[in-house]
Amino acid sequence: MIPENHPRYHSLIVRETLARYAKEEIVSLEGLSAHGRGEAFDYLLGERTTESALIAEKTAAAFLISAKNPVISVNGNTAALTAGVLKDLQEASGAKVEVNLFHRTEARIQKITGLLLKSGVSVLEGNAERLLPLPHDRAYCLREGIYTADVVLVPLEDGDRCQALREMGKDVITIDLNPLSRTARTATLTIVDEVTRALPNITGFCKNLNQGEARELKESHNNPKLLRDAIEEMKKRLGDALD
Amino acid sequence: MIPENHPRYHSLIVRETLARYAKEEIVSLEGLSAHGRGEAFDYLLGERTTESALIAEKTAAAFLISAKNPVISVNGNTAALTAGVLKDLQEASGAKVEVNLFHRTEARIQKITGLLLKSGVSVLEGNAERLLPLPHDRAYCLREGIYTADVVLVPLEDGDRCQALREMGKDVITIDLNPLSRTARTATLTIVDEVTRALPNITGFCKNLNQGEARELKESHNNPKLLRDAIEEMKKRLGDALD
Repeated sequence: MIPENHPRYHSLIVRETLARYAKEEIVSLEGLSAHGRGEAFDYLLGERTTESALIAEKTAAAFLISAKNPVISVNGNTAALTAGVLKDLQEASGAKVEVNLFHRTEARIQKITGLLLKSGVSVLEGNAERLLPLPHDRAYCLREGIYTADVVLVPLEDGDRCQALREMGKDVITIDLNPLSRTARTATLTIVDEVTRALPNITGFCKNLNQGEARELKESHNNPKLLRDAIEEMKKRLGDALD
Repeated sequence: MIPENHPRYHSLIVRETLARYAKEEIVSLEGLSAHGRGEAFDYLLGERTTESALIAEKTAAAFLISAKNPVISVNGNTAALTAGVLKDLQEASGAKVEVNLFHRTEARIQKITGLLLKSGVSVLEGNAERLLPLPHDRAYCLREGIYTADVVLVPLEDGDRCQALREMGKDVITIDLNPLSRTARTATLTIVDEVTRALPNITGFCKNLNQGEARELKESHNNPKLLRDAIEEMKKRLGDALD
C-alpha cells in the first residue's frame, strides 16, 4: 500500500496499475522499465501538455482525418494505459486498431486484444505476416492494417520499427516523451507528451477540424521545431532547479 | 531476443536482466519502473561517470572508511545489479550489508539474502523491528544494522526513508541518477551516477584513501554543488541536441 500523502502518489499508483497488468502479461516486464524512462522525461516536462505538444496533437488529428487508411498500432503499455480512451479516438478518427508487440507472443496478442474489445475498441484480427523490413518478430504485421496504412499512429514505439515504417513511405505519428530518441527524430510527427493526456486531445481535435484546416496543419508542420520546443522546456525545468 | 545491432542494445539487455530477476521476485515490478526512470537520467548524463560524480564517490569512500558502524542498505534492484561487486566494496569499506525493502515480504528478503550470500557478501540476518519513524513496512530495520549505523549507504533509496535516516542523525550516502529527487536533496552525500559504475569506484577509493585525506574530503564536501554539477551536465547534453 502506497501512503496517500507520498509526494509521488500519482506516479506510484500508475506504476502499480502497470505492475498489475504485467502480472496478467498484458504489459511486458521490459515495458515496465520503458514506462519508467518516460516518467522521468515527463517529470522534466512538468507532467503537463505543453503548448507545443498541443500543436503536435492538433497536427496528429489532421493527419489521421485526412488519411486513406489510418492505423493505430497498440502495444502492451498503450493498451494498459489507454484502453478506456482508445474507443473514442477510433470513432473520431476512423482509424483501424492493430495490436503490434516488440515482445511478441500469441498469448499476449490475445490478452491485449481481449482487453481492447472489452473496452469497446474494434481490433483488426487475422494472420500477421513478416511484412516489415526488420529482423525477428518485430517484422510481423497485418496486410490490411499497418502494411497498407498511409498514416500510422504508434504511441510508445521502438526506433527501429519507426524507421522501417518511414522507409516504406508511411507517415508515422509517434507519442514519445524522450525528444532525443531515435523514434522522436525519425517520425513524421512526434508528440512529446504522456500518452493518456495525448490521446483525448487528439480525439477532441479530430472532431473539430475541417479538411481545410487539416491540410494547412499538415503542410506547415515542422517536427524538428516541435522537438526543439520540448528540449527547451526540459532545459528550463532543469535550470529552475538551480535557482 | 534483442538484435545485437540495436542502438540501445546494452540498455535493453540490462532491462532483460532485471525482468528475469523480477520473475524470480528479487526485483519488484515497481522496481522495474524505477529502473527505467534512472535510465532516462543516465541517458542525459551520457551514460558515464562525470568528474563531479567521481568526487562524490571518493567522498563516499571517505565517509565509509571513517565510520564507526557503516551499513550498506540493499534492495532488490541493487542486489540484482550489483551482487557481483558488493563483496569487494564490503571488504574494502568494512561495512555491514542489510537487506531493506520498500516492497517488503519475508520471501523477497530471503531470496535477496540468498543471492547476496551466493556472491560472497556477508549479510546481516536477524529479527527486523519497526525502528524507523515511518508509516507501514518501510519502518523495519535491524537493531545491529541500520538502526545503530552512523553512516548508511543506500543506493536507489526512497525519499521518505532517506529523510527519516537523516532525522535520526545519520550520515546518508545515496546513489541517485535524478539530481532533482527528494532523496538526492535530503542525503548527506548524493552520487549522481549509475549504481554499477559507482560501486566499483567507491571500492577503489576505499582501498587508497588515508585517514587524513578522508577527513579533508568529509569536511569540504558540498552536496548542493554536486547536484548543481549534475544538473548542468544534463542541461548541456539537452543543449547539444539542439545544435
